[in-house]
Amino acid sequence: METVSTWKAHGGTQGVYSHASSATGTDMTFAVYVPPHEKGAKLPVLWYLSGLTCTHANVMEKGEYRAACAQHGIILVAPDTSPRGDEVPDEDGYDFGKGAGFYLDATEEPWRKHYKMRTYVEEELPSVVADIFPADMSRQSIMGHSMGGHGALTIGLRDGGETFRSVSAFSPICAPITVPWGQKAFTKYLGTDESAWQEYDAAALLAAGKRHPHLKIDQGMDDQFLEEQLQTGLFRDACTELDQPLELGLHPGYDHSYYFISTFMADHVAWHAEKLS
Amino acid sequence: METVSTWKAHGGTQGVYSHASSATGTDMTFAVYVPPHEKGAKLPVLWYLSGLTCTHANVMEKGEYRAACAQHGIILVAPDTSPRGDEVPDEDGYDFGKGAGFYLDATEEPWRKHYKMRTYVEEELPSVVADIFPADMSRQSIMGHSMGGHGALTIGLRDGGETFRSVSAFSPICAPITVPWGQKAFTKYLGTDESAWQEYDAAALLAAGKRHPHLKIDQGMDDQFLEEQLQTGLFRDACTELDQPLELGLHPGYDHSYYFISTFMADHVAWHAEKLS
Repeated sequence: METVSTWKAHGGTQGVYSHASSATGTDMTFAVYVPPHEKGAKLPVLWYLSGLTCTHANVMEKGEYRAACAQHGIILVAPDTSPRGDEVPDEDGYDFGKGAGFYLDATEEPWRKHYKMRTYVEEELPSVVADIFPADMSRQSIMGHSMGGHGALTIGLRDGGETFRSVSAFSPICAPITVPWGQKAFTKYLGTDESAWQEYDAAALLAAGKRHPHLKIDQGMDDQFLEEQLQTGLFRDACTELDQPLELGLHPGYDHSYYFISTFMADHVAWHAEKLS
Repeated sequence: METVSTWKAHGGTQGVYSHASSATGTDMTFAVYVPPHEKGAKLPVLWYLSGLTCTHANVMEKGEYRAACAQHGIILVAPDTSPRGDEVPDEDGYDFGKGAGFYLDATEEPWRKHYKMRTYVEEELPSVVADIFPADMSRQSIMGHSMGGHGALTIGLRDGGETFRSVSAFSPICAPITVPWGQKAFTKYLGTDESAWQEYDAAALLAAGKRHPHLKIDQGMDDQFLEEQLQTGLFRDACTELDQPLELGLHPGYDHSYYFISTFMADHVAWHAEKLS
């Protein structure tokens, strides 16, 4: 693993790291914030999955999580959103290919060689983090934004609370099977057989009986993608109908941006901290 | 004035605005955060002057000031660092020309037509802010980073506390006359007669008898520019010798970046809030 950059911040260390990923067959870059801690301490880990077009850097620069992570003693890990590099196939458009890995393992050509973000985020990167950082891997939680909210919800629901004690999302894509972003990505990455899509759709996972004990979503009501792409209402109704507990915050005036995320970030970190303590 | 963008954030509004400046003879862009407030209320104003290469956007995205400004009910205004546009002369290099206005009024050709950042920041933009926003212009303070710390210190010392109740800086250029950044900029903008440089040098202003009742500096001790460009030690010694009160924080491990600024931003906002209340 290569250390790309480190900065002291809020008493801890914000770093950017790069490593050769066997899951994606590429170099992968990720960001980790380690809060101030006593020597030898093992700290809980909060995963943050980013949205379309993002890298590890967006939340690192704009997410305003470090003060809260320092206060609660939590490591935050922010992976990239797709494989990168000249050898990785791509397409025009912000919502597919590079920057748009959708936290799945692609099965279709030409995507299946490199687009293995599910394996990368669920298996490979946790093992790297456990090796390198003062991480207590028995205490993990996961959060994300938009496509990364989709990632957090689907990973969390499939997990059921075994690995991730709590799951939260800002403006998540709640039912990708039913919306243009998801339909485009799943058709290309997974093929036209929609049975392969189900494990990557939070609403479908609920319908299939998956549950998580601690689920939290915050959503801006002036989000430009709310109607067409996110399906928060559909997911809320499914949670009610299927007895999945959901702490849902609907916030008038807020949009899809990091100005929304950063407003509620400290709340999310504190909520996870309570579950991780 | 044109509204470029607005976002709801921490209960208030983060906006970006553009206007035709008579001081610079160009369009100028600036950022304003207005915290949540009661209708009809007038709020104190905190100015943030940015460093070399920055626009209004750097602190807006990375500064982490909104939670503190919302808490204390303070408007934060972040101007650009120079005139912009094809008609504005420029040079190669990050430390002169566009992005490097040094908060002075240039007197030399070809710079003097547009590079009037002192008049812009001290006179024109405050009058725009007073017209458009719910600002109590009898309660203002000023802060800045690096070149913007130089701006805040020199504007504040020349003012003496009449307009700006408190002055703070992250990693300021404290004695530009004595360092490469300042010598290059002042020679080109102001000419070779160093008597014209004195009013743009915080240490020289102190020596000339200028004082401010509330001055605060925070400085990272691993700042890559500390030795060659900032002269914090020289300024601290001058303050001690000349009975200028200075709250100086020296912070091991921190560098010149927004990871340093954002760590101490809430402290600075709270410190100004106390003076502005």
